[in-house]
Amino acid sequence: MPGYAGKMTSTRERIIQTGARLFWRQGFPGTGMKQIVAEADAPFGSVYHFFPGGKEALGAEAVRWSGGQYAALVDAAFADAATRTNDLATLVVDVFVAAGEAVRASEWADACPIATVALEMSSVSEPIRLACHDTFESWLAGLGARFAAHGVVEAAQRELAITFLTLLEGAFLLARTSRSVEPLHVAGTAMAASIRAVVTAT
Amino acid sequence: MPGYAGKMTSTRERIIQTGARLFWRQGFPGTGMKQIVAEADAPFGSVYHFFPGGKEALGAEAVRWSGGQYAALVDAAFADAATRTNDLATLVVDVFVAAGEAVRASEWADACPIATVALEMSSVSEPIRLACHDTFESWLAGLGARFAAHGVVEAAQRELAITFLTLLEGAFLLARTSRSVEPLHVAGTAMAASIRAVVTAT
Repeated sequence: MPGYAGKMTSTRERIIQTGARLFWRQGFPGTGMKQIVAEADAPFGSVYHFFPGGKEALGAEAVRWSGGQYAALVDAAFADAATRTNDLATLVVDVFVAAGEAVRASEWADACPIATVALEMSSVSEPIRLACHDTFESWLAGLGARFAAHGVVEAAQRELAITFLTLLEGAFLLARTSRSVEPLHVAGTAMAASIRAVVTAT
Repeated sequence: MPGYAGKMTSTRERIIQTGARLFWRQGFPGTGMKQIVAEADAPFGSVYHFFPGGKEALGAEAVRWSGGQYAALVDAAFADAATRTNDLATLVVDVFVAAGEAVRASEWADACPIATVALEMSSVSEPIRLACHDTFESWLAGLGARFAAHGVVEAAQRELAITFLTLLEGAFLLARTSRSVEPLHVAGTAMAASIRAVVTAT
């Protein structure tokens, strides 16, 4: 029954996507399963059918799903910046500026989709901590490959990737509380300084 | 009745400190007033006596209190590092390493006391967002003054302070999910690069 299987797959995905959106916006402890199934337009029993591990299992899946979506957004920001410059230091400044405009456009609500859940749950749920860790590691691998393509030596690729993600996450936090793009602009400048320090040293 | 006033002050402070600890560990939406008054050993009605604005008002007070406590910890880390070096770039690397050891010592649970609440509540509660913003700004002023004392020109003081706080917050997030001090070490190196870029340029 391909139609039925298709419907089931789509219900599962709807639950994951709805969970991801609500965890992002409301945090994990503040979001109940009832709201998730209601907003996903899914029967209440279906969530335990698809996620026998309950809310915690759904949380881990939602983090991984958000991580994939967000990586695509970052890729798009880099691709857009690459139409204007090929210099890596200039490119990253451009990407941080674009990230600031995206947060501003969301009225300072939407920045990293997993940071809130990561801080709330990393000392509470091992499956959710691992989903966050794996997601950050996949982002770091993507950033490292990007820096490699721009000629950054292997020894510096991971370090620059961590610097990029660290600056982005910290700047998102300050941008949301200050309602200002200033932290993203400063972070972009700091990232450029780290790139120039590596390029000068090698 | 100074004795009575003293008792009342101390109950109020106990509620703030207990709230701060629970919001830090469990987040804001996941912490109920009942748990706060129970752990603060306070009568339930007293919380609304001291905080007519309820949980939101207590949240804002708790953020401000945590911010003051944490600033003292950061000051102590700088003072300790200053016994080993007077070079600013070396000093910040030392402080980031110490921050990593503090997070490790807490079994990756305790990093920034207000970041979780800031991410959870900045788009939900204006009093809590403002308490987080004011706290971050007071930390930035303290860091800027510190950099000024090390001869950083005025035009670069705030930018370096934002870079420091951004790197610290981002690295705390990655350290908690990865259970590793690596992000703090990388962030320290990046901070040193930003300081050297400013010193070279001026």
